[in-house]
Amino acid sequence: MHNLIKELFLKKLNNPILKELSDSAFINYKEKIAFTTDSFVVSPLSFPGADIGKLAVCGTVNDLVMQGAAPEYLSLALIIEEGLDYKTLERIVDSISVNAKEAGVYFVTGDLKVVERGACDKIFINTSGIGRVVKNKKLSLKNIKAKDKIIITGNIAQHGLAVLAKRKELDLGFNIKSDCAALNRLLIPILRKTDGIKFMRDPTRGGVATALNEITEGSRLGIVIEEKNIPISTKVRAASELLGIDPFYIANEGIAILVVNPDSAKGILRLLRKHPLGKNAQIIGEVGKKPKGRVILNTVVGSQRIVDMLTSEPLPRIC
Amino acid sequence: MHNLIKELFLKKLNNPILKELSDSAFINYKEKIAFTTDSFVVSPLSFPGADIGKLAVCGTVNDLVMQGAAPEYLSLALIIEEGLDYKTLERIVDSISVNAKEAGVYFVTGDLKVVERGACDKIFINTSGIGRVVKNKKLSLKNIKAKDKIIITGNIAQHGLAVLAKRKELDLGFNIKSDCAALNRLLIPILRKTDGIKFMRDPTRGGVATALNEITEGSRLGIVIEEKNIPISTKVRAASELLGIDPFYIANEGIAILVVNPDSAKGILRLLRKHPLGKNAQIIGEVGKKPKGRVILNTVVGSQRIVDMLTSEPLPRIC
Repeated sequence: MHNLIKELFLKKLNNPILKELSDSAFINYKEKIAFTTDSFVVSPLSFPGADIGKLAVCGTVNDLVMQGAAPEYLSLALIIEEGLDYKTLERIVDSISVNAKEAGVYFVTGDLKVVERGACDKIFINTSGIGRVVKNKKLSLKNIKAKDKIIITGNIAQHGLAVLAKRKELDLGFNIKSDCAALNRLLIPILRKTDGIKFMRDPTRGGVATALNEITEGSRLGIVIEEKNIPISTKVRAASELLGIDPFYIANEGIAILVVNPDSAKGILRLLRKHPLGKNAQIIGEVGKKPKGRVILNTVVGSQRIVDMLTSEPLPRIC
Repeated sequence: MHNLIKELFLKKLNNPILKELSDSAFINYKEKIAFTTDSFVVSPLSFPGADIGKLAVCGTVNDLVMQGAAPEYLSLALIIEEGLDYKTLERIVDSISVNAKEAGVYFVTGDLKVVERGACDKIFINTSGIGRVVKNKKLSLKNIKAKDKIIITGNIAQHGLAVLAKRKELDLGFNIKSDCAALNRLLIPILRKTDGIKFMRDPTRGGVATALNEITEGSRLGIVIEEKNIPISTKVRAASELLGIDPFYIANEGIAILVVNPDSAKGILRLLRKHPLGKNAQIIGEVGKKPKGRVILNTVVGSQRIVDMLTSEPLPRIC
């Protein structure tokens, strides 16, 4: 175990704080920080567009970003099933290393547990993270008011479908890739530059429908969204129809929902679209006093339907 | 899952930061902080003296304390096997709640994943933690010099034997309890009050032998310890002999090894013994220039033996 840590983890994730290999890492902060944790149990371990390592970096990075914090330091805790082959482990650690570099975050402390065969399914990863809260921006459900605009930063439902297709060995013929991405490079500069962002949420488990419902529940306001404005690729739409799954409920790992001041909406949209991760961003709807606590969808065929919160998990182990 | 979080976790672990139920928690720090992570996969889930919940609190608290940081905020991430009965889960969350209160730490953020039957063994817990580093005390292997004294804060080998006996359903007739305890209330005040502590380590996996070897390896000095001074209960000594296990290699979860300035050793020992968790503290040995990088034990029968680093794990899933 000692050698595994030195040869694999220290090499791939090297930084001056981690090198100390103490049980906990020292960090100097003079500002308000955010702190988060997430475990990753996705099955299969890799799928088009990402793997458990990339998810473990991006998921925790995004949780911090949604709170308006610039992610800086992460912890890495692995639970490994005895007999997991070294190549697989190395590929995962490589992915963690590459994605941490891309996101500009450092793994500064870690833990490794090995359990006997059958006691866990190959590998589970926990990453916790801390980040510096961007000054003078208070993101909160309490800020949201009627007439605020709802922006979505990219195409929906990619991640869940990519995992599902790989898991079920479905040859959908669509080649759908997970959208898994760290959103700090896209969103933190815009948060710093503008004043109109009131709230952010990443629509992971339960998809866009669940995230929107959490917003209406928390703000006690309503949201009306326009189906025609929701960014979705032709492939994803076709695959969802084929499988009979509503893309609104499918997990995403690289997009965010932003609630913004109506005056700032177009400016923020312009900034988002300048970045590769935001090129498909759209204003999809508006907050209103009614229907209180509910989400209404204006469909492309002109009808209206209520978009409910997800009550049971359709796809377990999606992240 | 929504209800489980609100009804169980929020009730038992309630505090103003957690109540926000956002993906990450805000924390104000103006000082140097330490950051750590640990996963807990112990089997069985409970055993005399502790359970996985108590371990998950104390283990992470102690990792921070060993770095000279007063633990403040913890995260809680659970991976639960589908079908785990609610009573068991509630007992574990109760234990987490009680032990967090006792240690004076707050759970401010969390995550919950449920995996299908057979994908994990009942429940795994990750806790990450952050703490405020005690000012003007720099604990480091680099501070250690020849003639420094080695103090151990309590009786050795309790935890590993308690878990082993329960796991194997051994009726040892000794009723050995795990020493599992949060050490911040014992050690942080002494660290603040005195100047003689140079380094601390909790001898968990691999026991006292492994922790001492890590100290000699890191400092490139030697340590000579006196068997007669090592605090060990009669029960533990008898059980170890019966099972043919060397108590030096058995995991502990509620004691620490301190390397202290020779002039301060007696004063620190006095302070330790005033606290219930330190009442069995002993000076067990001394640092020397020789044997470089090795640990020597002077036995009670007058012989000497080398105490090696543990090369293979005798007891997996001990924490």
